[in-house]
Amino acid sequence: MIREITRPDFASFWPTFSAIIKAEETYALDPDMTQQEAFSLWCESTLEAYALVENDVVLGIYYLKSNGMGPSRHICNCGYMVANEARGRGIARLLCEHSQERAIAFGFQAMQFNSVVSTNEVAVTLWQKLGFSIVGTIPRAYKHSQLGLVDSYVMYKWL
Amino acid sequence: MIREITRPDFASFWPTFSAIIKAEETYALDPDMTQQEAFSLWCESTLEAYALVENDVVLGIYYLKSNGMGPSRHICNCGYMVANEARGRGIARLLCEHSQERAIAFGFQAMQFNSVVSTNEVAVTLWQKLGFSIVGTIPRAYKHSQLGLVDSYVMYKWL
Repeated sequence: MIREITRPDFASFWPTFSAIIKAEETYALDPDMTQQEAFSLWCESTLEAYALVENDVVLGIYYLKSNGMGPSRHICNCGYMVANEARGRGIARLLCEHSQERAIAFGFQAMQFNSVVSTNEVAVTLWQKLGFSIVGTIPRAYKHSQLGLVDSYVMYKWL
Repeated sequence: MIREITRPDFASFWPTFSAIIKAEETYALDPDMTQQEAFSLWCESTLEAYALVENDVVLGIYYLKSNGMGPSRHICNCGYMVANEARGRGIARLLCEHSQERAIAFGFQAMQFNSVVSTNEVAVTLWQKLGFSIVGTIPRAYKHSQLGLVDSYVMYKWL
């Protein structure tokens, strides 16, 4: 079930969230941010945030927010995270499809990901399958913990 | 003289700022934002903001801020505005060169413009002259008041 995230949902997902940002392989977020800072960023500074919950376990989360103001306010942005133990089960796809429905309900016409790390092939491939295109390549935009400076992609879909 | 912007500087520049966002031709900002909202966005939610002042008249302004967190914190972002009566005098160039010096002083390694409206040829050409490259083209990213939906560019320079 995908439902609006609650503070307890976020708290139960925090070990995954923290591990993902500490890995410094996929997200351009401060690896040392606190749970409260992360909650504020993901759930309070956004339009809405959802959790995919199965048997009371949060397997994945996403947020939806505006990506531009004024003449670019028709573009939204989302971020997704999936728990390690739930990988390979199509959770990210479900979250992304849900987020596109929500974006359309809000009146957004396009969705933009500003920083998809180029070495995150699983994500890049999935977004492409879901209709997103690589519309930009930012050279050396991401300091990958294992690979050093790598490019990141701007990915975009007209909804 | 380029100096850190003061609240009176910003107030004196506000008619230009307001005209620029109301034109909806170059900036992805809410055209109806208030002076206080604009001050907060430009001068308080940034690392620093500067004004180019000549004979007590503010001819141009810019801000400098981070464009990414964590593994992308080496990238900064800037925005520039020039008063109509000062166009063609190289003010934007001076501001951009100053901002690159400040960015380097802060330890940034790259500067990224996330949304350069593709029809804003004066800006695109100037940024290219100053070493920025178009690294992405976001289709139909900007609702231009005269031209309708136009592309916007992501421009980038390794400092």
